[in-house]
Amino acid sequence: METSRNPGSAPRLTASYRIETPCDPERAAEAMAGEQSSGTFLKLAGETEALRERHAARVEAVIHRETVTTPSLPGAPPGDAYARADVTLSWPLENIGASLPNLLATVLGNLTELRELSGIRLMDVELPTRFIEALPGPQFSIDGTRRLTGVGDGPLIGTIIKPSVGLSPEETAALVKQLIEAGIDFIKDDELIADPPYSPLRERVPAVMRVIEEHAQRTGRKPMYAFNITGDTDEMRHRHDLVRDHGGTCVMASVNWIGLGALMGLRRHAQLAIHGHRNGWGLFYRHPQIGMSYRAYQALLRLAGADHLHVNGLASKFAEADASVIDSARACLRPLLERPERDDRAMPVFSSAQTVHQAHATFSQLQSTDLIYTCGGGIMAHPDGVAAGCRSIRAAWEAASSGVSLEDHAKQEPDLAVALRAFRSPFSG
Amino acid sequence: METSRNPGSAPRLTASYRIETPCDPERAAEAMAGEQSSGTFLKLAGETEALRERHAARVEAVIHRETVTTPSLPGAPPGDAYARADVTLSWPLENIGASLPNLLATVLGNLTELRELSGIRLMDVELPTRFIEALPGPQFSIDGTRRLTGVGDGPLIGTIIKPSVGLSPEETAALVKQLIEAGIDFIKDDELIADPPYSPLRERVPAVMRVIEEHAQRTGRKPMYAFNITGDTDEMRHRHDLVRDHGGTCVMASVNWIGLGALMGLRRHAQLAIHGHRNGWGLFYRHPQIGMSYRAYQALLRLAGADHLHVNGLASKFAEADASVIDSARACLRPLLERPERDDRAMPVFSSAQTVHQAHATFSQLQSTDLIYTCGGGIMAHPDGVAAGCRSIRAAWEAASSGVSLEDHAKQEPDLAVALRAFRSPFSG
Repeated sequence: METSRNPGSAPRLTASYRIETPCDPERAAEAMAGEQSSGTFLKLAGETEALRERHAARVEAVIHRETVTTPSLPGAPPGDAYARADVTLSWPLENIGASLPNLLATVLGNLTELRELSGIRLMDVELPTRFIEALPGPQFSIDGTRRLTGVGDGPLIGTIIKPSVGLSPEETAALVKQLIEAGIDFIKDDELIADPPYSPLRERVPAVMRVIEEHAQRTGRKPMYAFNITGDTDEMRHRHDLVRDHGGTCVMASVNWIGLGALMGLRRHAQLAIHGHRNGWGLFYRHPQIGMSYRAYQALLRLAGADHLHVNGLASKFAEADASVIDSARACLRPLLERPERDDRAMPVFSSAQTVHQAHATFSQLQSTDLIYTCGGGIMAHPDGVAAGCRSIRAAWEAASSGVSLEDHAKQEPDLAVALRAFRSPFSG
Repeated sequence: METSRNPGSAPRLTASYRIETPCDPERAAEAMAGEQSSGTFLKLAGETEALRERHAARVEAVIHRETVTTPSLPGAPPGDAYARADVTLSWPLENIGASLPNLLATVLGNLTELRELSGIRLMDVELPTRFIEALPGPQFSIDGTRRLTGVGDGPLIGTIIKPSVGLSPEETAALVKQLIEAGIDFIKDDELIADPPYSPLRERVPAVMRVIEEHAQRTGRKPMYAFNITGDTDEMRHRHDLVRDHGGTCVMASVNWIGLGALMGLRRHAQLAIHGHRNGWGLFYRHPQIGMSYRAYQALLRLAGADHLHVNGLASKFAEADASVIDSARACLRPLLERPERDDRAMPVFSSAQTVHQAHATFSQLQSTDLIYTCGGGIMAHPDGVAAGCRSIRAAWEAASSGVSLEDHAKQEPDLAVALRAFRSPFSG
């Protein structure tokens, strides 16, 4: 996402797409602009031209790309060839106001169903400063997350409570105790557990926070626990207060299922960091000719208030390509507004099959340690135990960020040396 | 959506999928069940087997279908062939509790990203009675909507304010006056207008409701106007109250962009009918190997509180096939629970290029007039004006529901006769 830089004229927002169409791409772009602004213009006492001038969406650019012979999506009218193109449209901000759900109704909305399009993917959005300023954005972002956890530099080393389902509040607390004594910075609930009858938050939160508070009292270091409070707006606010009242610092929500309206509703109430889990995101990116890029969507999630956002990880067990993971993480780390008083970055969360082996590639492509690096087996399955697992991951990141190879660093870090023998590199062919 | 009928055992919820995989489909189904319940099972003081027994997702059925040679979605490991299959999984309700966002985290969630799957589409969900009963459901449904509008039988004849953007509150009210004097039952805002600076709801609602209230006083008939209140939870509640305080009977929201968490948040507060607009739905259905069927999703939207749900229309300008439109509408009309005290159906809303010509096909396939039939040009472009347009649509539906052909009925209905000459049938090849 980039910020619009045309302060002289009336502010406009811009969206770019990759489309595929059996029509001429210029004509398809005009149909898109028409559908998403004027609709049917009727004769209305001479207002038509003035209205169109002021409110119509504008085709800013059409760049032709390759042509294919088979449509990517069914439902388009038959044709001999389907042209792909990059299309940029813009709208006056006045059409929408500063509203994220209404932004999506405008930049995606019915476009996803147009017969003129056999492919439609939102690639990026460019928002006027006035739009960005009117929305809350993340409350804690990266600096706030570091302050809350006492992790001044390097990534936050994290893990996820497993098994995903079935542990009682007491069993969860016992596992948390083991993990924080091992030196973990961050722990999250799995997205499969929120407030189920076998582990209600009213029992899980006090049980877990008792362990964390005791540790914080003793050591001065308070690891962050992201409690999954996913639910409707009122449930989430109620659960947020429960976490806050027991000294917790973070709440997590499945952002795609609660939706932007509820994420905003949570943010307006929140005093804790919001950990945005994007499970279900595959619906939006798995097919290249339908959906929306995370580059665009992460900006909306940040503006709605997410402090942390999942981006998968390199060489993960998921279908996403590594280049896409890095593109997402870079987008999360790019400020929407450059203002000293407002940090609107989100902290990217790497996960899925991460071990010591991905630290170098991740750092070299991102050139940042402002991230949460979560490992399951990569910590838990360390032959010398969970504490050695934590130390090995931290050592791998020290090596990565100081340009030393894992093998060299392992000479001074026995836990890393053991990890290198125990975990096979996903990059070694 | 069907209701589970196994009251004897612990309640389970069931989800069915169409998948595509380079693996053996049975193994892919096991991977799906594993990912969406146990995750990684660690050794935890002997609890593992008991936990698995109680909480693991179960593969209920795998039915092999065709095999293809090219994967539908990128990111899956290479293979010689990709097998398609229908897979049914079930979970104990206890894993989730009665929560719609957490249901989706469980039945879709990470499945959308699994490398084992080169296709994954949620086809249907079967929910236990206890889950359904714990959620609010629609407050007005069909009977309530008929009561509010005074339309005892036949479809509600509706239209959408066009141009979609740009009209001032006064211009909108003038158009509403013309439409309701013409006999319209239902009017909705376009999804492109919610609360923009050029027509804020605090001005549009009083302007429109003044016209409607005056008409109701004079005629005893109060057409329904669906004000688009799409926004975050607090904004929507505030705007809902504004509509209520001015005598309005319906609010509309873009359900995909506010999300289930915010729709629930609105429903818990609402005293008015909720009109669910599904713009953006193309993201979920346009490609047959990724997404979710409306058969499944509409049930969740109803349980969250939607009284009306869009289903497109037959022979529309959109890419959806007619069979899919009818399947969606039938699903909306099927009760989730058969209880005299609870009407949990949603009223399907037909739209997009609808004229007198689609009435017969729609009725014959649906065998119901419990629907909202919205026309733009099909009413506005009637050669004898908007009132004749309304009468022609009503006449077409009278003909359809009494088994008389349009041509025969047109002999007694001059407005229908004119419409038949003015509008070309989309079915006439």
